[in-house]
Amino acid sequence: MANSRSGDSMTDRIVRVLDTFTTERTMQTATEIAARTGLPASSAHRIVGDLVAAGLLERDEDNRIRLGMRLWELALRGSSALRLRQAALPHMERVQTLIREHTQLAVLEHEEALFLERLSHPDAGANITRVAGRLPVHASSSGLVLLAHADPPIRERVLAGPLRAVARETVTGAATLRAMLTTIRRRGYVVAPGSIEAVSTGVAVPVRDHGEVVAALSVVLPRDSATAAAIDALLDAARAIEKDLNRSR
Amino acid sequence: MANSRSGDSMTDRIVRVLDTFTTERTMQTATEIAARTGLPASSAHRIVGDLVAAGLLERDEDNRIRLGMRLWELALRGSSALRLRQAALPHMERVQTLIREHTQLAVLEHEEALFLERLSHPDAGANITRVAGRLPVHASSSGLVLLAHADPPIRERVLAGPLRAVARETVTGAATLRAMLTTIRRRGYVVAPGSIEAVSTGVAVPVRDHGEVVAALSVVLPRDSATAAAIDALLDAARAIEKDLNRSR
Repeated sequence: MANSRSGDSMTDRIVRVLDTFTTERTMQTATEIAARTGLPASSAHRIVGDLVAAGLLERDEDNRIRLGMRLWELALRGSSALRLRQAALPHMERVQTLIREHTQLAVLEHEEALFLERLSHPDAGANITRVAGRLPVHASSSGLVLLAHADPPIRERVLAGPLRAVARETVTGAATLRAMLTTIRRRGYVVAPGSIEAVSTGVAVPVRDHGEVVAALSVVLPRDSATAAAIDALLDAARAIEKDLNRSR
Repeated sequence: MANSRSGDSMTDRIVRVLDTFTTERTMQTATEIAARTGLPASSAHRIVGDLVAAGLLERDEDNRIRLGMRLWELALRGSSALRLRQAALPHMERVQTLIREHTQLAVLEHEEALFLERLSHPDAGANITRVAGRLPVHASSSGLVLLAHADPPIRERVLAGPLRAVARETVTGAATLRAMLTTIRRRGYVVAPGSIEAVSTGVAVPVRDHGEVVAALSVVLPRDSATAAAIDALLDAARAIEKDLNRSR
């Protein structure tokens, strides 16, 4: 009943509809959505109609569709992402006040770093669209920390490649990467110059919840900045977040 | 094909499953979920299975179910809630630094105030669970601002009642409330002492996006605090958010 002839569940088809919305594409017509899902048009239109009726999508007066506040509420209200970012936020603010650069919180999600939060200095210009964005684990400083502490089977799958060169200096050799991960676990932080963009250096540390690494906290510095102050601020913040997480469950 | 015999769509049933998760209930067994949805057990279990397979729910090693990071990502990535709270966050931080009390951002959602963001002073104690929470529009200061600027049909539906007394001082008379809303539109802010809790006073101002009121920005002060500084800080922040929103689209 819930499955189409092709064997994907209704849930899968709803995900395909929601997945057509991105940070750059927040408004679409039902026809555009249908085309992007690759589903039969009648099926896609019916799902869009159901999602609008349930409030998960919203239709404006020009008949354009956007994600609904009800979806936001359902996704966040009971979410561990919310618990984590709420515990982290005050301490991220302190890092940002000290370091005055982008301050970020990421988790491991399907072998990528998924960004739960990003603070930018009020004068640092528009930075509206990157929360809920992803970066490869082997290239971003947050990802490297998450990968260093991931379950071994996940780590091995990533190391087995392919390891894409995001920038000229991205480490793409499995042996070098494996040695880096060992160093990250030993040192408790990573400094990754130029691995995402030539002009910047990522600095990241692990955040633990009851002993287990659940997130990475990071700052993005101009390429040749001193990193000691950032490392200290991140380690202090990570310890404070861990204390608050321990209290909260 | 997508509908059950009772006429609710698969989307409705998925919403019923997701809706069993709350700020206080972030982990459940599949059996608990099934009981809370009121759906036939076999149907609820199949939906949970589909949602786990799609990553919208996650199952831990003890077979307990929680909301998945993938759901969080799909709900936020293209969301207008994200655009709004990202534009607001730096300015909310400034309000919080000045006023040192809870600072909140809310939108109107189904005749209630839905809170998109809440900042608390690092030393203000645990406040992890209230983002994505709701308050009645006629009682909370944020809600009063949103109601004052809502489309007239929505305002009339709320005024037609019932208007529940959340606290002893909640305004529950339609005529008094109507006069308050007129005053709020004229003054550009509201001060609502004791309308949610006897010990506190809410202060809220509207936030406009391209001229239209889309949110309320508020602080919660101890009951007999002076309010002038908070009103000024909120009005300044609202203007700054409006400028950033105008730039961002």
